[in-house]
Amino acid sequence: MYGIEYKNEIILIDAGLKFPDAHMNGVDYIIPDIRYLLDKPQQIKALFLTHGHEDHIGAIPYLLRHLSFPIYGGALTIGLVKAKLEEHKLTNSVDFHIIQDHERVSFQQLSVHFFRTIHSIPDAFGIVVDTPYGSIVHTGDFKFDMTPEGKTADLHKMMQLGEKGVLALLSDSTNSEREGQSLSEQTVGESVLELIQQCEGRVLFATFASNVHRLQQVIHAASECNRRILILGRSMEKIFSIGQELGHLHIPQGMLMDMKEIHTTPHHQVIILCTGSQGEPNAALTRIAAGSHRHVQIFPGDMVVFSSSPIPGNVFQVNRSIDMLMRSGAAVLYGAEYDIHTSGHGSREDLKLMIRTMRPKYFIPIHGEYRMLVSHQKLAEHIGIPSNRIYVLNNGEPLLITKYHVRKGRTLPSGSSFVIRGKVGRHEPELIDERNRLAQDGVLIVALVLNNETCQMISGPDLIRRGFVYVRDANELMKTAESHLKSALYGLAQKKEARCEIWERKISEVLQNFFYSQLQRTPVIFSSIHKVTHPTQ
Amino acid sequence: MYGIEYKNEIILIDAGLKFPDAHMNGVDYIIPDIRYLLDKPQQIKALFLTHGHEDHIGAIPYLLRHLSFPIYGGALTIGLVKAKLEEHKLTNSVDFHIIQDHERVSFQQLSVHFFRTIHSIPDAFGIVVDTPYGSIVHTGDFKFDMTPEGKTADLHKMMQLGEKGVLALLSDSTNSEREGQSLSEQTVGESVLELIQQCEGRVLFATFASNVHRLQQVIHAASECNRRILILGRSMEKIFSIGQELGHLHIPQGMLMDMKEIHTTPHHQVIILCTGSQGEPNAALTRIAAGSHRHVQIFPGDMVVFSSSPIPGNVFQVNRSIDMLMRSGAAVLYGAEYDIHTSGHGSREDLKLMIRTMRPKYFIPIHGEYRMLVSHQKLAEHIGIPSNRIYVLNNGEPLLITKYHVRKGRTLPSGSSFVIRGKVGRHEPELIDERNRLAQDGVLIVALVLNNETCQMISGPDLIRRGFVYVRDANELMKTAESHLKSALYGLAQKKEARCEIWERKISEVLQNFFYSQLQRTPVIFSSIHKVTHPTQ
Repeated sequence: MYGIEYKNEIILIDAGLKFPDAHMNGVDYIIPDIRYLLDKPQQIKALFLTHGHEDHIGAIPYLLRHLSFPIYGGALTIGLVKAKLEEHKLTNSVDFHIIQDHERVSFQQLSVHFFRTIHSIPDAFGIVVDTPYGSIVHTGDFKFDMTPEGKTADLHKMMQLGEKGVLALLSDSTNSEREGQSLSEQTVGESVLELIQQCEGRVLFATFASNVHRLQQVIHAASECNRRILILGRSMEKIFSIGQELGHLHIPQGMLMDMKEIHTTPHHQVIILCTGSQGEPNAALTRIAAGSHRHVQIFPGDMVVFSSSPIPGNVFQVNRSIDMLMRSGAAVLYGAEYDIHTSGHGSREDLKLMIRTMRPKYFIPIHGEYRMLVSHQKLAEHIGIPSNRIYVLNNGEPLLITKYHVRKGRTLPSGSSFVIRGKVGRHEPELIDERNRLAQDGVLIVALVLNNETCQMISGPDLIRRGFVYVRDANELMKTAESHLKSALYGLAQKKEARCEIWERKISEVLQNFFYSQLQRTPVIFSSIHKVTHPTQ
Repeated sequence: MYGIEYKNEIILIDAGLKFPDAHMNGVDYIIPDIRYLLDKPQQIKALFLTHGHEDHIGAIPYLLRHLSFPIYGGALTIGLVKAKLEEHKLTNSVDFHIIQDHERVSFQQLSVHFFRTIHSIPDAFGIVVDTPYGSIVHTGDFKFDMTPEGKTADLHKMMQLGEKGVLALLSDSTNSEREGQSLSEQTVGESVLELIQQCEGRVLFATFASNVHRLQQVIHAASECNRRILILGRSMEKIFSIGQELGHLHIPQGMLMDMKEIHTTPHHQVIILCTGSQGEPNAALTRIAAGSHRHVQIFPGDMVVFSSSPIPGNVFQVNRSIDMLMRSGAAVLYGAEYDIHTSGHGSREDLKLMIRTMRPKYFIPIHGEYRMLVSHQKLAEHIGIPSNRIYVLNNGEPLLITKYHVRKGRTLPSGSSFVIRGKVGRHEPELIDERNRLAQDGVLIVALVLNNETCQMISGPDLIRRGFVYVRDANELMKTAESHLKSALYGLAQKKEARCEIWERKISEVLQNFFYSQLQRTPVIFSSIHKVTHPTQ
């Protein structure tokens, strides 16, 4: 999420989410921390969306819980945001505007216009914010593609911007480490057609549902090969309906088939277009791979195409899917060998063209891990942007531009908020640490009841364990632990020790030492000590 | 780990470990399940080691707890195994044999000989087991390299084997998806030298300690550039001592420097050779990156070289290291851009050369994930091995070869054993599931004391929580939960319900429902119910 602030106006660009890594137990998403905005709710004029991917629109439902602003974006982007708000059952009446190519949106001091770009989803736009000091250009995620599927980028408008002069360019750094130019969607289309032509069984084709152009390529290929298409997966169904409605998807009549027809249609006449290209546990292809899909199973002769590249955190699960599909006898195509996928982000040559086009005074590499920003920075230096006009910014670090000079400002309240089961919090990292600690060696619970007067144990100590030990001789070991514990606690009772914290400390000490020496494990230990008055014994 | 069995003789080849993935909480390693061998301890004639990497020798200490056999391997391999047994404080007297290039080890029916190969560690050997039906060749991990550092592969011996006839070839599939030929170590050496020559500050060079040839390249470069070397990291120190002792490392006098000298030596005269190329949390480079190393910190102008490629499971932590180093102002070189690393495994052209050389009757792709085995299988078919003579085997699936025919046998007891804090178990997957369940939404513990006669609560219910909720209003929420719980439990007391399991079920039901409806969380709930007799109230 980016913000451009001038006097009492704030323009927001994108509001995405990030997926948690494997250690963030129970975390759904990570979203931007919006404390800075909560202090100035009146000044937010609008949110402009470059395109409809989750990492650009995913945080919107959480923002709308606290803030209210109009939202501008391409037609598909707005369609996806609306669907998302429905899922979240958000009933705010949001003021949506669909961007027109040549439109200008004006506020008091700032005004905003757009240029069409190419990305792996239709209706992607670069955003230009005109300020009293000059134009600030945010590319969104983009690549150049001279033979795209769908609309072309508005090169002329981009050239005009550069000609007029750009104050600052914020440009996508995702593929700044990749040499050359990103593959054209047309090459992918040709390759996909060729592969489908060679296949004698069914084709299962998995890709991101939002990659509408890729879906259109598969529809073309199906047409050419006299195959019909079965759509599997909720997000795939959703995009087919939105995509058709907006005119991005052109589907010949009779092309789509029903689940009922799958069993009666000859294999060489079928393409199954499905979700699961990232090995997502509940997606259609993953369930097919695991043999747990209700209607579709793999037959030898089937060909599965992963038209995608795995996001780093998903490599394990994608590979597991590929392995399972191969074991079922499918031919599985994945990776760079077949030109079955192209990135939606520009490689180094694309990035150079963008900088040359915009000729910015200041350059700010955005969107990517720190090393990608640095790589983009070096690329910009290499093609002639003076190094003192390039700013690599950390999250929350503002760039302050006045008429006379430019400098980094003090970091604003910023960072990540965690969404856990739909609830947002900033203090959740501590919670995640606790969870990881529980999982490390499991838990042990000791419960006992003390006579309030005599400090004798009336009941317990009972030991409950979970995730701690499973070895064959655990019973023996647990008995030994219990007897150690008992004798230590009898000692306390003898001394008429009445303080619960002393009992707790002793329990913890005895068990930690015992189990560390026996198993090198240090479970989380809980004690529950009850004191009751005068039982008759 | 592979076994070749004929009548009453078993020859073992390698005994490696696997690293756990992020979800396997508290698991140190995964090692082979050796039940099959435990039933036939007398028949194991020897363990032959292809080379000294962890995934080929790491399970040896665990095997030696139950089995006893002589161990054969190259000099460095044996050196590393000995060091490992010392670390494990294993005092078994093991019969070690250092392989000589032209040696033959004969048993009753089987005999074993060797051929030198190239891998990313010195003293790598292919292993030939001569059986009454023909020779079985296990390549170990290998690549071809016409300009290696150190000894060359024994091409002539390999050709002789092929000429004589090979019954079955088991060949390394790790890079079967990679086109072309793996880069020569010499190219890496030249590239490293060039980069170090250009650097005006200090060079920090990280690689696997066991990559002795790479270390030698850095020593060459240091010599050329008049730099001296500081060694950082325990495994790096260990390999320097073993490597020198065995004559694999040649270090000019005065080349190595002391930690004391680092502060007084001009930056352009220093190379720091360190561990941490995989971003391992406690390795030298990782601590330097995090700013927590006691003696070394990054200065602007320093160059850090990651001469390695990240193992898939380590991508996150490697990237985190790179980012931190860049933020400290270092120039960081990583990835394929600079020819600073080459794989020790042969790419497709290397694999073809191996198959052409050995001309095996049967081909068994080994070492790699299933998709790599399949890719290797297709490669073998492509260069002319009939597909009915290629066997892709699952773990534990034996290939039965008789004089007249070949078939897959029934799967033997096999699979993975988990090492948790040094203890081995086969039932540990259930334990890991329990741990992940604890981490998912945290735990809630409810403890209370009942009057044995009246079934009234004397004390409690007390709620303890961990990793469950941290939000600001948790206290309010927990109080509400407690009052819900209390009223439900009073109901049981009214009914004089005496069965603990009914109380437990009620506790679980009330809390699960309440917290699911409030937070969509389902913590693991423990109840501890004590009954005591006749308290006076």
